[in-house]
Amino acid sequence: MSKKYTYFFGNRAAEGAADMKNLLGGKGANLAEMTNLGIPVPPGFTISTEACAYFYENGRAHPPGLWDEVLENLKKVEAAMGSRFGDPGNPLLLSVRSGARVSMPGMMDTVLNLGLNDSTLQGLAKRAGNERFAFDSYRRFINMFGDVVLGMKHSDFEEILHGKKKALGVKLDTDLEVEALKELVAAYKEKVRAAIGQDFPTDPLEQLKMAIDAVFASWNTPRAVTYRKIHGIPHNWGTAVNVQAMVFGNLGETSATGVAFTRDPGTGDKRFFGEFLINAQGEDVVAGIRTPMAISELKQKMPGLYKELEKIYRSLETHYRDMQDIEFTIQEGRLFMLQTRSGKRTAAAAVRIAVEMVKEGLISRETALLRIEPEQLDQLLHPTVDPKAKVTVLAKGLPASPGAAVGKVVFTAEEAERQAVKGEKVVLVREETSPEDIGGMNAAQGILTARGGMTSHAAVVARGMGKCCVAGVGDIRIDEKKKQFNVKGVTVKEGNFITLNGSTGEVLDGKVNLVQPELGQNFATLMEWADAVRTLKVRTNADTPHDAQVARDFGAEGIGLCRTEHMFFEGNRIEAVREMIVAGDTAGRRAALAKILPMQKGDFKEIFRVMKDLPVTIRLLDPPLHEFLPHTDREIEDLSKQMGVSAEALRNKVSSLREFNPMLGHRGCRLGISFPEIYEMQAQAIFEAACELAAVGFSIVPEVMIPLVGHVNELSIIKEQVIQVADRVMKDKGVKIKYLIGTMIELPRACLTADQIARDAEFFSFGTNDLTQTVFGLSRDDAGTFLPYYVDQRILPDDPFVVIDRQGVGALMSIAVEKGRRTRPDLKLGICGEHGGEPSSVEFCHLLGLEYVSCSPFRVPIARLAAAQAALKQSGKEAIPERDV
Amino acid sequence: MSKKYTYFFGNRAAEGAADMKNLLGGKGANLAEMTNLGIPVPPGFTISTEACAYFYENGRAHPPGLWDEVLENLKKVEAAMGSRFGDPGNPLLLSVRSGARVSMPGMMDTVLNLGLNDSTLQGLAKRAGNERFAFDSYRRFINMFGDVVLGMKHSDFEEILHGKKKALGVKLDTDLEVEALKELVAAYKEKVRAAIGQDFPTDPLEQLKMAIDAVFASWNTPRAVTYRKIHGIPHNWGTAVNVQAMVFGNLGETSATGVAFTRDPGTGDKRFFGEFLINAQGEDVVAGIRTPMAISELKQKMPGLYKELEKIYRSLETHYRDMQDIEFTIQEGRLFMLQTRSGKRTAAAAVRIAVEMVKEGLISRETALLRIEPEQLDQLLHPTVDPKAKVTVLAKGLPASPGAAVGKVVFTAEEAERQAVKGEKVVLVREETSPEDIGGMNAAQGILTARGGMTSHAAVVARGMGKCCVAGVGDIRIDEKKKQFNVKGVTVKEGNFITLNGSTGEVLDGKVNLVQPELGQNFATLMEWADAVRTLKVRTNADTPHDAQVARDFGAEGIGLCRTEHMFFEGNRIEAVREMIVAGDTAGRRAALAKILPMQKGDFKEIFRVMKDLPVTIRLLDPPLHEFLPHTDREIEDLSKQMGVSAEALRNKVSSLREFNPMLGHRGCRLGISFPEIYEMQAQAIFEAACELAAVGFSIVPEVMIPLVGHVNELSIIKEQVIQVADRVMKDKGVKIKYLIGTMIELPRACLTADQIARDAEFFSFGTNDLTQTVFGLSRDDAGTFLPYYVDQRILPDDPFVVIDRQGVGALMSIAVEKGRRTRPDLKLGICGEHGGEPSSVEFCHLLGLEYVSCSPFRVPIARLAAAQAALKQSGKEAIPERDV
Repeated sequence: MSKKYTYFFGNRAAEGAADMKNLLGGKGANLAEMTNLGIPVPPGFTISTEACAYFYENGRAHPPGLWDEVLENLKKVEAAMGSRFGDPGNPLLLSVRSGARVSMPGMMDTVLNLGLNDSTLQGLAKRAGNERFAFDSYRRFINMFGDVVLGMKHSDFEEILHGKKKALGVKLDTDLEVEALKELVAAYKEKVRAAIGQDFPTDPLEQLKMAIDAVFASWNTPRAVTYRKIHGIPHNWGTAVNVQAMVFGNLGETSATGVAFTRDPGTGDKRFFGEFLINAQGEDVVAGIRTPMAISELKQKMPGLYKELEKIYRSLETHYRDMQDIEFTIQEGRLFMLQTRSGKRTAAAAVRIAVEMVKEGLISRETALLRIEPEQLDQLLHPTVDPKAKVTVLAKGLPASPGAAVGKVVFTAEEAERQAVKGEKVVLVREETSPEDIGGMNAAQGILTARGGMTSHAAVVARGMGKCCVAGVGDIRIDEKKKQFNVKGVTVKEGNFITLNGSTGEVLDGKVNLVQPELGQNFATLMEWADAVRTLKVRTNADTPHDAQVARDFGAEGIGLCRTEHMFFEGNRIEAVREMIVAGDTAGRRAALAKILPMQKGDFKEIFRVMKDLPVTIRLLDPPLHEFLPHTDREIEDLSKQMGVSAEALRNKVSSLREFNPMLGHRGCRLGISFPEIYEMQAQAIFEAACELAAVGFSIVPEVMIPLVGHVNELSIIKEQVIQVADRVMKDKGVKIKYLIGTMIELPRACLTADQIARDAEFFSFGTNDLTQTVFGLSRDDAGTFLPYYVDQRILPDDPFVVIDRQGVGALMSIAVEKGRRTRPDLKLGICGEHGGEPSSVEFCHLLGLEYVSCSPFRVPIARLAAAQAALKQSGKEAIPERDV
Repeated sequence: MSKKYTYFFGNRAAEGAADMKNLLGGKGANLAEMTNLGIPVPPGFTISTEACAYFYENGRAHPPGLWDEVLENLKKVEAAMGSRFGDPGNPLLLSVRSGARVSMPGMMDTVLNLGLNDSTLQGLAKRAGNERFAFDSYRRFINMFGDVVLGMKHSDFEEILHGKKKALGVKLDTDLEVEALKELVAAYKEKVRAAIGQDFPTDPLEQLKMAIDAVFASWNTPRAVTYRKIHGIPHNWGTAVNVQAMVFGNLGETSATGVAFTRDPGTGDKRFFGEFLINAQGEDVVAGIRTPMAISELKQKMPGLYKELEKIYRSLETHYRDMQDIEFTIQEGRLFMLQTRSGKRTAAAAVRIAVEMVKEGLISRETALLRIEPEQLDQLLHPTVDPKAKVTVLAKGLPASPGAAVGKVVFTAEEAERQAVKGEKVVLVREETSPEDIGGMNAAQGILTARGGMTSHAAVVARGMGKCCVAGVGDIRIDEKKKQFNVKGVTVKEGNFITLNGSTGEVLDGKVNLVQPELGQNFATLMEWADAVRTLKVRTNADTPHDAQVARDFGAEGIGLCRTEHMFFEGNRIEAVREMIVAGDTAGRRAALAKILPMQKGDFKEIFRVMKDLPVTIRLLDPPLHEFLPHTDREIEDLSKQMGVSAEALRNKVSSLREFNPMLGHRGCRLGISFPEIYEMQAQAIFEAACELAAVGFSIVPEVMIPLVGHVNELSIIKEQVIQVADRVMKDKGVKIKYLIGTMIELPRACLTADQIARDAEFFSFGTNDLTQTVFGLSRDDAGTFLPYYVDQRILPDDPFVVIDRQGVGALMSIAVEKGRRTRPDLKLGICGEHGGEPSSVEFCHLLGLEYVSCSPFRVPIARLAAAQAALKQSGKEAIPERDV
């Protein structure tokens, strides 16, 4: 007996099943599964991937016997449908679709309405009672077949269509009358004859054979090959071909079509939710030409069919143990399920459904935890753009900090603060933000920048504040003088309202309605379950007592990164900081630092108080000093007057600090080596704060973190200084406290020499922002000109500033973990880069064996869930749930 | 019998030998070795490192029996010298010195003239016939002993000395009369009593015991501990103590002292060369107070001793098989050798001595090759500042490109060209150079920059041109408007002469005499020997036919890096390049590129012609596009008129291309991905050039190099484009040629994913400049503010832009080599960073198993010798010669 290549499904029984994806492709296996569940799906058959492999291994020949199998299965389809392929009176029409083992969206081809010709057309028209529909289907079929099977271009047909519409003075395809469509069919056929030198094939069987070959061939189009290359899909897998009966919901008043969800996708409420139209095609439901009816009305209109549908949707939800998004068509009183898949839902619905399904005994807690995309929780924590609102998108940038914001446009931080004092809601629009803008950012509802990426200053600070930010909107041209910006011909002036959607990166015109967040009991339950299974601790990046409090409320278990430089900008501190920078000698710097000391100590005390006895990692000064100085001539002159130094001297200082590549410049511990008095002051502030609180019963264990260490000697020198300060302060205060000294691991060299660095470091905290920049040689602030294209084209699988690049950055982290632990087995390991709140990166940190991740306050719940998922996936207790069926 | 801790040397026999360094320290072992050679050295004994170890392991106690051994050996010293320790009539004086296994210069302590007290002082005065000398020695001894042994501060004594000089109104120590010295001795003793609460110890044996303990203790001073930590020297090694008789060349007319070389250290001529003084101390010979006599005159003055000295120096040269630098003292008719060590010599002398010693049968060719510091050869290739010239150093920067230059100061590239046309020699002084300055740099004798490091634009281009450059002279303040620069209060105006020493980094005032280079037969012989043993090939980095020719003349075996962007600046090309950048669309860019194509093709043809059939690696465009545009308002306006575009549009373009960190920006293959037409044009130029030459009998195998690849997908996409161009050109030209497509490995991510990249790359060329920048997170252009301090303080062992950092950068290279070869065993591997011409880095490349190094033309001979040394060291045929004995 020759090998079997074709698998039938129909009449509630299939030769395939869900576990035969390698042979039948994802789509074919799923169609078989549904059929076997007793669910009515339009009958059809799947030609296996083995046939495709044979096709390529044998000079594009079919395996022996394949065509006989096709004809045999075709008969079964005809029987099941009660119509015949090529029958002019009651024609069976087919769809022919590709379907590989894994989804390759949009990569391969599909032909619909196969079987149409001049005579079957009549049968279709008659059954539909609609000649126009039949001719329009025919026109589309010729176009699709010409494009996919005959190697013609889509534009070949589009040109003819446009010409016809122009000649008739109509705008929409739907405005074309049946006569015009008839003429178009003729013109299309003419075009085919001119292109391929013969008539459009009218024999349905010939059409079928050609379409199957075309789907096989579409496996090897250049774009499909490239796609596989990028995604690491083997070229020899091949695609299956699914041949399935077309069904029509528009064959009269006993026909209908609809879409529905097994629970409310907006709220998670357990009720059947959806819409349908009688005597309509699937696209009519979505197109909005006719207003669909609520699914409940189907109960009145077609009680028997509704009952059948109810039974089916319940069985599908039970089978897949998840809320399903289903499509159905009723053709002349017969119900067909066209699709079921896991339904998209809002975050609120996702949480409610997951928690309720556990209570219903449908899924385990583990499954519930795995069911929710951690990223989705973001929606619950921030206001969002009302999904029902009508919006005008002005431009699109990077979704740098989630949530939404409505406000009047302002162009300076000062103006933002001024307006906010008046009670106005404003959106701060800047070319890019700098630390001096902090006050204005805080006063604004949201921040929009024309430059900068996902980890630019604006993005990082906004996320820290839990404030909406859209960054790197390249299409915007800001004219600060005229107080306006231009975007694609539209001018938006200061005072005009705009709305930002920080979750999509969209900039919307005017005031758009926002929906406020609400955290309920279901959310709390889910988080409790997550905390019970995760092993990775979750800390926060917080620089202020307020941020620290927010993060604790979200469940943070410590501070993983407290950036001391943000404190340098508050109030009149910046004056002392500038005095320190401009000072010509150590004595001058010390005098200025002495002014900062009490303020910095106060900050630390407040933060320690909020965090109680939870660990707090404080990073010593990191940014280059020029970040604290003004740069424009006017600002320099203003400051020179204020400081009482000559403008020239100040300009010289600014110029001498200027750097070609500040990211790779005089910053981090290099400052600590050059100006030991700075770190000395900071260490003194930390230890005085901790000792003074220790005296009143707190038990603080500060973790002093040295940034940008590249060579162990840097750390050794600074560690020694810090220890001296600690000893001195403890002696002065008469208190002994425990403390740790460690380092950011944010340079490739630090990873490669982690064994040496661990001799002096008591903890490592991976600074994956900078590590990503150096590993890729990629400035996060400049990457906007090409990185989006890279991600879009899948040259890089993800934006590496969002998702940790495991192969590069991750490989170095892994080296650092291994080498560090070899030297110091009890080395404390964590991450404080922006990746610490991104689910895939959290999983990677779990797999690396880190002790904690640290992220901005509003991402703490996301990290908690992601950490739980990572633990579950690693333990293998629950298989990773499939999303698309 | 108790363990032996003390080893005698004297009377031409020693208990130790050269191979006992671990026990006796370097100095002790060497003193023993000389003694055993029958050479008269002042007798003494060495207390072993084991005694020091015992000292630390037993609460600072001496091992049992040590003191008895010391007394016993002291008697032998007394016998050998014919004087007694503590004898008021004829006192033996001792030196007590530390001496560890490895040299720790300046780290540990020494006491001279030990044994002096009020009574032995008289004996010394009598023997010297000079009371003043005796009291001065006594004063110094109390000071040194107080400082080293008694824990006092040097300044304690200096204050007294200064006070005395001030009181007497004298300036120099030598102006103090004997009475004053006597008073000083009294005052010093008083100070000691006040400081330690008892009298200065007068018992010579007590002095000796205390001095030995002090040397032991000096092993653990904080600076010595830090030094060992940085240099990886184990703390438990301990130091030996050398106790040796003091000898004096100033005890009358039968005493003398001198220094000499066994061959002429300036020319290498084989003749005894040196100077001496009768009745003088060693320091008098160097101090220049009295004029020393040529060593040949000693033959007349003391024929017997001269004969003895002649025999000794010959035996030392034969024993050490190298030119020796010796110091001797004749004390009352007795010759003592105080030191012998390998003599410092000029490059010319080094080459001549090495080659001649091979011919004399004294050393092997291998030893000759290992004897010469490759770096020294640089002296032979460039003019140098006349070592005899008197100079005024204005400032010091980085020795960015060796050689020397004299010329009038100019501040712009245009002015340099204008003056050069007039036949004037100029030095171009710039804040920093940019590619637009190339013409002026070429016209100048040398280049001076105020900013930028060893691999800044100025440095790289200057080295390529073999032109002297001093970079990063931070003390210089340039005022372009006033056409002058200021340096530490001195003003140098345009037209003033300065001289640059590119080998030291010095900026000298006025015209200083230069010495021109000369390559002789000895050099050629040495290079031949080097080529015979090395396995590493040496290519060059050359962008012009001229550079290529220079490099071939120096022995380059191909081009490892041809930077195409340098060609973009020549003549009117820059106009077309700018037109391309400003163009708003692909068509506009293509039109501009079409103008560049024939010129670029012409460049490649010329270079191919010069290199004949040697391999040529061409790197496609690397720098960010803004490097090709002007940046000041005036320049932008000028250009806008020239190009016929609005100044605003041009300014917008410049501003849109501006980057925060250009080093990590839109450059390298990222440009090739964004604007495929650029690389397409370059590939076309390469293949047309190669095919057209192939048609006339050349056999070029171009190597097309894609820069800044971080992910294999970047390479895959561009490789595909290049192959398409190659196929098209070869078809057009009807010629088939072989070619390779490969990549720079210059990002950490490329190293970490080298296995993937090697799937598409046929060769790797390590771009260690950028790799060093990313591994360290260190901008070479900005590092000037702190890197010199790092190197100076040994926080980093070397400037990583000069010497490859093996632990960090090297570790990544090693990963890349291993992973790359795993995927593609025949992967061609080379290096084209600036390190390719630095000896230690060349050795590392040899050890890594690279096929070639590529360096600037003038460093090719250095790389050839370094490659030979690396091969010899690895094969272990010849031990690494010792430099200091």
